[in-house]
Amino acid sequence: MVSFECDYIAGAHPEILKRLMETNMEALSGYGMDPYTESAKEKIIKACGIDTAQVEFLTGGTQTNMVVISTMLKDWEGVIAVPSGHVSIHESGAIEFTGHEVLEIPGKDGKMQADVLRDYLIRFYSDVTHDHMTFPGMVYISYPTEPGTLYSKKEMEDISAVCREYGIPLYLDGARLGYGLMSRHRDLTLHDIAELTDVFYIGGTKVGALCGEAVVFTKNNRPPHFMTSVKKRGALLAKGRLLGVQFDTLFTDDLYFKISRHAMDMAEQLKEIIREKGWEFYVDSPTNQQLILMDDDQMEKLAEHVIFDRWGVYDDKRTIVRLATSWSTTEEDLQVLRNIK
Amino acid sequence: MVSFECDYIAGAHPEILKRLMETNMEALSGYGMDPYTESAKEKIIKACGIDTAQVEFLTGGTQTNMVVISTMLKDWEGVIAVPSGHVSIHESGAIEFTGHEVLEIPGKDGKMQADVLRDYLIRFYSDVTHDHMTFPGMVYISYPTEPGTLYSKKEMEDISAVCREYGIPLYLDGARLGYGLMSRHRDLTLHDIAELTDVFYIGGTKVGALCGEAVVFTKNNRPPHFMTSVKKRGALLAKGRLLGVQFDTLFTDDLYFKISRHAMDMAEQLKEIIREKGWEFYVDSPTNQQLILMDDDQMEKLAEHVIFDRWGVYDDKRTIVRLATSWSTTEEDLQVLRNIK
Amino acid sequence: MVSFECDYIAGAHPEILKRLMETNMEALSGYGMDPYTESAKEKIIKACGIDTAQVEFLTGGTQTNMVVISTMLKDWEGVIAVPSGHVSIHESGAIEFTGHEVLEIPGKDGKMQADVLRDYLIRFYSDVTHDHMTFPGMVYISYPTEPGTLYSKKEMEDISAVCREYGIPLYLDGARLGYGLMSRHRDLTLHDIAELTDVFYIGGTKVGALCGEAVVFTKNNRPPHFMTSVKKRGALLAKGRLLGVQFDTLFTDDLYFKISRHAMDMAEQLKEIIREKGWEFYVDSPTNQQLILMDDDQMEKLAEHVIFDRWGVYDDKRTIVRLATSWSTTEEDLQVLRNIK
Amino acid sequence: MVSFECDYIAGAHPEILKRLMETNMEALSGYGMDPYTESAKEKIIKACGIDTAQVEFLTGGTQTNMVVISTMLKDWEGVIAVPSGHVSIHESGAIEFTGHEVLEIPGKDGKMQADVLRDYLIRFYSDVTHDHMTFPGMVYISYPTEPGTLYSKKEMEDISAVCREYGIPLYLDGARLGYGLMSRHRDLTLHDIAELTDVFYIGGTKVGALCGEAVVFTKNNRPPHFMTSVKKRGALLAKGRLLGVQFDTLFTDDLYFKISRHAMDMAEQLKEIIREKGWEFYVDSPTNQQLILMDDDQMEKLAEHVIFDRWGVYDDKRTIVRLATSWSTTEEDLQVLRNIK
Repeated sequence: MVSFECDYIAGAHPEILKRLMETNMEALSGYGMDPYTESAKEKIIKACGIDTAQVEFLTGGTQTNMVVISTMLKDWEGVIAVPSGHVSIHESGAIEFTGHEVLEIPGKDGKMQADVLRDYLIRFYSDVTHDHMTFPGMVYISYPTEPGTLYSKKEMEDISAVCREYGIPLYLDGARLGYGLMSRHRDLTLHDIAELTDVFYIGGTKVGALCGEAVVFTKNNRPPHFMTSVKKRGALLAKGRLLGVQFDTLFTDDLYFKISRHAMDMAEQLKEIIREKGWEFYVDSPTNQQLILMDDDQMEKLAEHVIFDRWGVYDDKRTIVRLATSWSTTEEDLQVLRNIK
Repeated sequence: MVSFECDYIAGAHPEILKRLMETNMEALSGYGMDPYTESAKEKIIKACGIDTAQVEFLTGGTQTNMVVISTMLKDWEGVIAVPSGHVSIHESGAIEFTGHEVLEIPGKDGKMQADVLRDYLIRFYSDVTHDHMTFPGMVYISYPTEPGTLYSKKEMEDISAVCREYGIPLYLDGARLGYGLMSRHRDLTLHDIAELTDVFYIGGTKVGALCGEAVVFTKNNRPPHFMTSVKKRGALLAKGRLLGVQFDTLFTDDLYFKISRHAMDMAEQLKEIIREKGWEFYVDSPTNQQLILMDDDQMEKLAEHVIFDRWGVYDDKRTIVRLATSWSTTEEDLQVLRNIK
Repeated sequence: MVSFECDYIAGAHPEILKRLMETNMEALSGYGMDPYTESAKEKIIKACGIDTAQVEFLTGGTQTNMVVISTMLKDWEGVIAVPSGHVSIHESGAIEFTGHEVLEIPGKDGKMQADVLRDYLIRFYSDVTHDHMTFPGMVYISYPTEPGTLYSKKEMEDISAVCREYGIPLYLDGARLGYGLMSRHRDLTLHDIAELTDVFYIGGTKVGALCGEAVVFTKNNRPPHFMTSVKKRGALLAKGRLLGVQFDTLFTDDLYFKISRHAMDMAEQLKEIIREKGWEFYVDSPTNQQLILMDDDQMEKLAEHVIFDRWGVYDDKRTIVRLATSWSTTEEDLQVLRNIK
Repeated sequence: MVSFECDYIAGAHPEILKRLMETNMEALSGYGMDPYTESAKEKIIKACGIDTAQVEFLTGGTQTNMVVISTMLKDWEGVIAVPSGHVSIHESGAIEFTGHEVLEIPGKDGKMQADVLRDYLIRFYSDVTHDHMTFPGMVYISYPTEPGTLYSKKEMEDISAVCREYGIPLYLDGARLGYGLMSRHRDLTLHDIAELTDVFYIGGTKVGALCGEAVVFTKNNRPPHFMTSVKKRGALLAKGRLLGVQFDTLFTDDLYFKISRHAMDMAEQLKEIIREKGWEFYVDSPTNQQLILMDDDQMEKLAEHVIFDRWGVYDDKRTIVRLATSWSTTEEDLQVLRNIK
């Protein structure tokens, strides 16, 4: 039995565990005040190619979204997202827990559209009662999106332009950023993202780390006393080295990108297998998550050989099934899938 | 210049002011521990015709929604509403301020539909990842709705049935309840509402009071230590008599219903005038708020004679204009409208 | 039976009710956008004698504390108060409800002491772990204090100086401000308070109004989008006229100060009576609230003639009893007390 | 240069890293649905010797306090703690962030005293205005306490008895539980703690883990939908295995207790060295943290050889210095301290 359940089924990339072992008995200060964290920050800033960047580490994706959004929004503001956005639907109300509203606007294939966003903002400010409403104070997008799609550079530029026109920061959730950036179908670079957004995060949990996400504030715009706000949210890790060593390793010799590329090679083969099997795509995804439609019989058969995720209900008869590759997917795993009759 | 801007343009019904004056110098205990508050509660329970009812008074509508919803929801729950619901769009995120999410499902003419609600709940519970989502813990509807429509008894029974099937309390926002109950087009009574909901409020601010809403917990289900939770939200009025005397007056000799009926008579005449003028209805409302579509020229002309509300943007050319009658609308007010050429 | 229970036992000063009646049927815009609110603001600014003042109205004291404190604090900050401060002990956790901590430092007779405050701040900033603590972001004091004492001008200047040294706003809770300012024992003026604080409120509820408090931001420092933040907290009154007309009346012909002076004259007579009776003072209060210690026998006897407040437990045998005068106290009320044998 | 800065200067106990490596490539479900997490739970329940126990894992101490306290308190309740309690002073307001107040009562040497607690509760309920206050809804204590002291079994029984008398759950913060339980000076066992409290946590971060705390609900009293509430607070770890494997290892062959005992042996030697050097104890601690008073000269000298923590300001001349041992402290480390002249 092999697993395509999600992209966090394995532990850490072996190189990471090796570095954790090598540094394990060093006496280091806590809360991110150690040299590995410092080094990881420098390497990430260099990889982004933008010298106004500031980097902070957090433990998980929902936590990162909650911390970033609630420390950047003003009291009277909310965050705009599409209905399939992780903050809209899959965080048990973590944003609302901090007292802020998620303002939903329609998306397409999981993506926000610049013209829909602009139209929303025009309507908001032309509504004479808008003082009785939540002000749009941030735009949240994911790259790749939750169903696995990617923004083109043009699409991102357009969204970024609307944000700047309205003075609203653009935040990109990069839980699977590596898989997006290493897709054959992308035309965006890490540097582009750093340029076009105000803040984004580089996902570690789903791309080779045991845990951890690297938040990049791109314009010297880290909220003041950020460490205290992180602590206030119960999100400050005592042994910051756990995050520092992992990201220092991931950003040494392009490991983050290499393992992402591997996952994408596996994904391309996976798509090939899906096509061969005649399974129906729910979304034609250029990234590591493939969403397909299956009836109960198909799922039963699949379940005999592999572990997969029931991503959602499609209709009375069919379920949206997710098959994900990751840095840990092997040729052998794919072969099991191929062999299903 | 006369005003149809909203249904809270005037102060209080004269009978209320008279009672406030008569009782003004009596030494009374605060925080609702006075005999007028007690009497008002009894009269409202009697009017509801349901002996498991418990009544509490609050100052305004958004405050009431916030207090009721956040004291009844569990930590992991949110409240379901349609996008035009007051809690969804016009409370600056007051529900989210308390840490809870508003879960939007599509509405029709401002109304929630029982089958859409059931479908939402079925999908929620059949989603294997629903532990990562906000649980539906309450259903919020308005009567009349924000655009002025009314639920039929059948529609309410259907929604109530879905709520009971899923063990979810049904909450009805009655900011303009009197106007709904006195519409010629309604088939619901106050007693029906008390039977079909778990909690609702009888709006005072828009129906003759200076301020104040009466919350009715219909099933002996007032949250424990409610007074403390109200205080914690900054919503406990020191001189509770201000609310008690007002509601005691409104529920003496059916004053609440009589002044509501007057508003509805005025509304019927207003609709007649709108039809005569050839103005286009945005929603065909059976209640005191009439939403019509006007271009800039029409609005300019209207603005020479009456004060009105720009309710929202309709399209590039037209605005949704709200004309509202209330207990204070007079025949003379309508005549001014009639005389516009 | 007469009542000395508190200073909010009566309704409104008759002049206020008269003005509410006279203006009752005028069609006015809501949410404070009416001419009476405008006029009241101007009169208050004039009374403060400070042209950088901005005035906003809210409904009650706890609500005002919650709104002001939570809109002025930054995410990582809390508010410093003494243990007897209203925000510390008598608001059911309303400040904490907004996500902020009340930082207690020892007080004396209900008052904060400048040197204790400075010492706290010195220790905070010299603590190397202070990033793991709540930052002091505001200082809260009451005038008069909860047990009825008053700051001298010198004491206020000293506290204000510490606040400015540390760049922390000073907030004064003036729920009973009139009674403090009209005490024979005070040397502070309204203008002094406006100069020495960053924000304060002029209490209406306890000084002649049905409800309402006037917040004065003294340095053009009203938080941005304040109306939206007020709405978000469920604290925006639809019929803002109710607050506007009341404060416009209170600040016409010095009514606020005249009725406060009357209350203080009554308080001086009350103190005389307490001394004559040989009752023991708990605090020697220069204002309208007199706290005395009584055993059960004494309370029983008192309770035969007047209504009073059990303010707190003193020891196994004695209770702290509060007798309060107000604008509505009469010579006849005092006579009843005098006649107790 | 060796470090006595705190008890989380090293990574993980080597046995833990070994197990993480061995299990690293296994495909496991996320969010704690893996067999290692299951096994760890069983072992901890067995170690507690109480079959009504339920175990959940979280990442860090402040996070655990926030999650446990805010999911167990009712809306109108706060948590009682002593001023030196971690939740009172060193969590940047994390409890308040969730909308709940920390109610401080005086402590002695970092410990809560049963009679002070009882007196507080008696006063609270005898105060006629207590509906305007935060209700005491939980008691928070630490074992060992923040300054390193320990409750005797008798003291714990007394506190527990007061809690049961008032129906208030008792919560014990065991960030350093192992060090307390392995102190020569303790008479409490893990089983006693499970019996006497309603919920407590077994600290991993400071006792050999990279991160992680094990919450034990002792009376089948885990809050409903706990996983969703954890997610809502951004505290749900995707790769739950990271916590599961670590605690499974710590509770195999008594590793948790063995490494704790080692730390305590080191602590006894440390105390001996402190006595030999003539350094003044701030608190005579029976556990792994030794607080001593040093003037600037002494600290300067110490700083030449070891890294230590400036725990707090004592007076104008002296600082409270913390020297901590842990599972990773070696005889060589102690020798460096011994050799200081």
